[in-house]
Parts: sequence; C-alpha cells; structure tokens
Amino acid sequence: MLQSLDHDSAMTMSAVLAANEAFYSAFAAGDSDAMENIWSATADITCIHPGWPAVNGRPAVLDSWRSILSSNAPLIAAADAEVRVIGDMAYVICNEHLEPGTLIATNIFVFEDGAWKMIHHQAGITPVPTPDRSPAASGILQ
Amino acid sequence: MLQSLDHDSAMTMSAVLAANEAFYSAFAAGDSDAMENIWSATADITCIHPGWPAVNGRPAVLDSWRSILSSNAPLIAAADAEVRVIGDMAYVICNEHLEPGTLIATNIFVFEDGAWKMIHHQAGITPVPTPDRSPAASGILQ
Repeated sequence: MLQSLDHDSAMTMSAVLAANEAFYSAFAAGDSDAMENIWSATADITCIHPGWPAVNGRPAVLDSWRSILSSNAPLIAAADAEVRVIGDMAYVICNEHLEPGTLIATNIFVFEDGAWKMIHHQAGITPVPTPDRSPAASGILQ
Repeated sequence: MLQSLDHDSAMTMSAVLAANEAFYSAFAAGDSDAMENIWSATADITCIHPGWPAVNGRPAVLDSWRSILSSNAPLIAAADAEVRVIGDMAYVICNEHLEPGTLIATNIFVFEDGAWKMIHHQAGITPVPTPDRSPAASGILQ
C-alpha cells in the first residue's frame, strides 16, 4: 500500500536505480556472470525480450541472457528512469537507447537479503524520445 | 521477500487473475468507467501502450485509455496468464490475442482497500503462440 511504504525514500529509490543501472551495465558489457547476479536467486523469475514469448523460471531466463549476451554485446544505455516502490517490491520504467532505435522497459525488483534483485523484465519498441520528453523536462528521477 | 508472502495462496492468485480479467473485460467492452475502476486511485500509476512512450500519472493514464477505448473497442482476450505475488504487490504476464496479432503484457497490481488494483501495464508485440506453448502444455495457471 502506498500509505505504508517503508522504502519510499530518496535512498531507497537510489538503491533501486542502482540495481537498474547494474542490469544495463551487465547488458552492455555482455557479462553473463554479472547478469546472473542481477536476478533474484530465489524468486520464480520471468522475462519478456522484445518480440519473444515469455520466458519463465531462472534456468530459462538466465539461458536466454547467455544466448543474447554471447551473440552480441549491444551498445545499450538506460535513460529517463521512473521508480515506484511498494514495500519490498519496486519497479522501474525506462528507455533503452540502442543503435538504431529505442526500446522501453519495465523492470521489477524485490528487496532480497539486503539488496534489490530483478524478478521480471519486459522490453518493447517505443518511439525515439523527442526533446520535450527529455529528463530535464519531464521530472525524471535520474 | 518470497519467504514472507502472505498472499501466496490459490485464493489470492485467483483474485489477482480476476483483476487481470476485469481489465481485459473493460478493454474489450470499451468501457472507460470500468477501466477507471481497474486502476489504483491512490498510486502514482504508469502505463506503456504498444509503440507508445511511457504515460505517467493517473490523469494521463486514464486519458490514454479513454482515447483508445473511444476510437475502437478491439476484439481482445487474455490467455496464458502467469501470476506472481509478493506481499501486497503482484504481477501478471499474459498474451493478448487481438485481430490480427498477439501482444504480450506485464500487468502490476497492488492490494489496496481490499482489492487488487492495477498500477502499471506494458504491452508489446510477441509471436503468435505455437501449439506447444498452449496453456495445457505449459503449466499455465488459467
């Protein structure tokens, strides 16, 4: 419930954003080990890559990332992140800038053993942001 | 934390699925009033329609739905729903069957005043499911 948030602080949102950034750093570096560490080790995780069907469960999700990261290490950078925290769960929506286009993602995290771990990711196509939707103009959190 | 779930029961998952179904019923009926009731009245909700930039905040999200529902009431039906519950938050991933294609969605809900209310929706393209990914073959929850 929004009224009972115990993680709704600037520090908590920064920690969620850091987890989100770590995901994109692992992605951009093509680092499967780092990617494995991003995801919850205990939750029944899920992932929806752009244009893919859903991938369910840690073995299949991590296999999908190993496949993606071994075939190409894309130039990817997250921007325009928006964070919402509800208790021990949080989600981030952000743009993913790649060549030649832009995707938009929903990334869900849980607070697990003292750290925010990803439990779900969905990315899909979105228009390239126009200047009036830049971070400075839209109250973006980072 | 997955260890402290208090909603991880068949009854709770059914309630989340019912909220998810109510969303698609409102969508298919083109019912803006029902759609408004689906969404949290208190959370800072977000929505990512297929091919759109993010829509942030209840007024903008509800406006986007009024626009979509007034222009066409699509033949849409959800299938292959998977539910995850973490405390007072839950998410559903499911396919959205429309003419002429299939989308895949992430729908996030919070338990608010005794009911599961949507706080985020993202839909994007996905392949049309093949028979070996049918509900009967993949352990789908509904």
